[in-house]
Amino acid sequence: MTRELHLNLFINGRGHHEAAWRHDASTYRALTDVSYYRDLALAAEAAKLDSIFFADHVTLGEDIEHATRGELEPLTLLGSLAALTERIGLIATASTTYSEPYNLARQFASLDHLSGGRIGWNIVTSWAPSAAANFGLEQQAGIDQRYARANEFVEVVSKLWDSWARDAILDDRASGSYARSQGIRPAAHSGAFFKVAGALNIPRSPQGRPVFVQAGSSTDGRAFAARYAEAIFTAHLNKESAIAFYNDIKTQGRALGRSPDQIVILPGISAAIGSTEAEAKRVWAELNELSHPSVGLARLSNRFGGYDFSHLKLDQVLSVEDFPDPALVQASRSRAQSITALVARERPTLRGLLHSLAGARGHFTATGTPEQIAGIIADWFTSGASDGFNVMPPILPQQFEIFAGEVVPLLRKRGLFRSEYRDGTLRDRLGLDPVPSQFDPAEPVRRSA
Amino acid sequence: MTRELHLNLFINGRGHHEAAWRHDASTYRALTDVSYYRDLALAAEAAKLDSIFFADHVTLGEDIEHATRGELEPLTLLGSLAALTERIGLIATASTTYSEPYNLARQFASLDHLSGGRIGWNIVTSWAPSAAANFGLEQQAGIDQRYARANEFVEVVSKLWDSWARDAILDDRASGSYARSQGIRPAAHSGAFFKVAGALNIPRSPQGRPVFVQAGSSTDGRAFAARYAEAIFTAHLNKESAIAFYNDIKTQGRALGRSPDQIVILPGISAAIGSTEAEAKRVWAELNELSHPSVGLARLSNRFGGYDFSHLKLDQVLSVEDFPDPALVQASRSRAQSITALVARERPTLRGLLHSLAGARGHFTATGTPEQIAGIIADWFTSGASDGFNVMPPILPQQFEIFAGEVVPLLRKRGLFRSEYRDGTLRDRLGLDPVPSQFDPAEPVRRSA
Repeated sequence: MTRELHLNLFINGRGHHEAAWRHDASTYRALTDVSYYRDLALAAEAAKLDSIFFADHVTLGEDIEHATRGELEPLTLLGSLAALTERIGLIATASTTYSEPYNLARQFASLDHLSGGRIGWNIVTSWAPSAAANFGLEQQAGIDQRYARANEFVEVVSKLWDSWARDAILDDRASGSYARSQGIRPAAHSGAFFKVAGALNIPRSPQGRPVFVQAGSSTDGRAFAARYAEAIFTAHLNKESAIAFYNDIKTQGRALGRSPDQIVILPGISAAIGSTEAEAKRVWAELNELSHPSVGLARLSNRFGGYDFSHLKLDQVLSVEDFPDPALVQASRSRAQSITALVARERPTLRGLLHSLAGARGHFTATGTPEQIAGIIADWFTSGASDGFNVMPPILPQQFEIFAGEVVPLLRKRGLFRSEYRDGTLRDRLGLDPVPSQFDPAEPVRRSA
Repeated sequence: MTRELHLNLFINGRGHHEAAWRHDASTYRALTDVSYYRDLALAAEAAKLDSIFFADHVTLGEDIEHATRGELEPLTLLGSLAALTERIGLIATASTTYSEPYNLARQFASLDHLSGGRIGWNIVTSWAPSAAANFGLEQQAGIDQRYARANEFVEVVSKLWDSWARDAILDDRASGSYARSQGIRPAAHSGAFFKVAGALNIPRSPQGRPVFVQAGSSTDGRAFAARYAEAIFTAHLNKESAIAFYNDIKTQGRALGRSPDQIVILPGISAAIGSTEAEAKRVWAELNELSHPSVGLARLSNRFGGYDFSHLKLDQVLSVEDFPDPALVQASRSRAQSITALVARERPTLRGLLHSLAGARGHFTATGTPEQIAGIIADWFTSGASDGFNVMPPILPQQFEIFAGEVVPLLRKRGLFRSEYRDGTLRDRLGLDPVPSQFDPAEPVRRSA
């Protein structure tokens, strides 16, 4: 079977550039207005993308004065979007550190029913230090501890999702038998972090469970991804870094007995697209012009666990000595590492660094005509850097309209991207095997592909 | 202002009679099929009801072999129904015992945005003993402890909902000011059960917060309701009990400085409606014929904290000695009390008791023509037993279709019920005052009614 390119639209505020909300071409609707997300979801569906995705944090975040904050909560929002769309996959972020497994398992199973099997779960451990204080904790757990909990969390919710057989419900009015009690088994989980006795109180969902998505790229994050992730959102500043990551994950997955095609790797791409290269470049220039240094500085500080960079001047040339050791960072360690690597390599000014991060927070940014962007996508896809992309338009909806209207048709012309949806769930679309059931006969069910 | 009758549709399985799922007139759709709930919600909206409501438990429940279990999760379901309806209020149950305040506050605020101010929260402490074991607890907390936690829970989520001023967001593209940081204040809550530091990460919702709904009728439950509830679902087997409850709650509320019209009391009514009284009676007979004694016995046992009734025979006449002391029940104490009172008064057989509880689990059941049912509703409303009703059709959708199509028009003819929705939120519809904001000037805002 030919490999199929996968495209996910990552919906973030009014666009992925931190100053997008100020740009004339970004939406004028409030970030709590569901019609904005509905229209983006419908546009992505019309373009036949695999899915849309919402990130999440369980804390307000820094610098509310100059940055957009306060979007809708992803699971309830997906409830609405499940009703407002028909085919597109819907991926929400939820935290293993700040959720109860029984509640999270139920809500995702319910969403999978509501959407007819279109749901994915972006599994995060929540790196923001301020989140802990919203959940009664004096301080944030360390990265090791968060991933230890995440591993057990995925184990226990998987037991809950597998607690009903596909045919547990008989619904036999004549005999009065509603369900087979042998078709429902308790989770009976008892571990270091969680004890969950019972079965889930919702039948097995169309996909068995949500597609497991993951986005952490630290050593712990990669080990977790290699074990569980079926789709990975990952941030790389260039193709070489993406290829190294791609090979590392697929190798780690293989070592765990997983087939490489069962891990769909989607680097972020934030593309400014114009009818000429100059027009595309102007998009970044306009956005950087609108960006506020305090927003970038606060984010940079957060990436390094709250480190204080306020003594640095905007036009100062940076060196790695200006940064704390990223190996000691307990928050988003892999982003911290990629930032210090960039500083060592390019020696930017602080303003230059903030501009380069303002675009897409450490993801790959591209600039060009639709042809050029389609070329980059095809190149990464065919040279083993990705199985598709996490599309992160710098300005929404405008830059996504250009992507959907002009780049996607070029990818089709190259034979890389679908023209129509086939029937099936999000799992099917991503080429993922069905989720086995503990109630299946001994031999696990494999798709006859 | 004339008092206005309020009607809520309580959607439960295929109807409120435990055997409804076997009856020919109940839906043939799966309980995980959103189209079933959508159609009921639209029918309730067409009839101009105040709201629809979903109960919830965080455990599978007893006797899955003979009773329907495994419905959709209420908050995600309301996400979908918010998108599929336009005007009707949407009330979901969520537990203060098994939720994190920050997560629950966000999801309800998000739903209130998604629905344009139509959300209510039925606050429960989760009485089912088996729920605790799904959340890492060896045993269920006692009723006092659950209500102590519930009180603090409502306090902390109220702080979170009040953490943004109405005008916190400036969204000023020209100056680059997104929000006023003085318009957002941290919850800064530190109590016996919860510590929540930050502000909520979603702006104040259209209603300020969901309408507070409550359904517990124990001593602790009533005290909680008198303090917080703005609408109350309550179970009474007859009008006298409902009047006593109504007076008790409004008196307790007044003692706490609340205006009686700010607590809308809605007893459950499960009406079998037929074109003749005989036809209506036949509905109950058919349903009782289809009911399975083990379902009723398991529920009875659950109401009494797991007490074993299996030694009793179906045709045995019961006395209060057959029951444990309801004052010692840590689960749903008020229901246990009302059941033993009925046994003392009527001395039913076990079969008779199970049949009378099968109808609506201890709620008032009525039988008659549309005229008779409208008469009962008008009588309770005008004689100080209720401010409206929690409508619990024994068979769904059939018995609700009759209620909406034949009883509601009669209530209109009597001048008791609206013919059209007025603009406004669910709060407005229920005649509730706006939720004050900590950012308002010293004098609290009151509706100029």
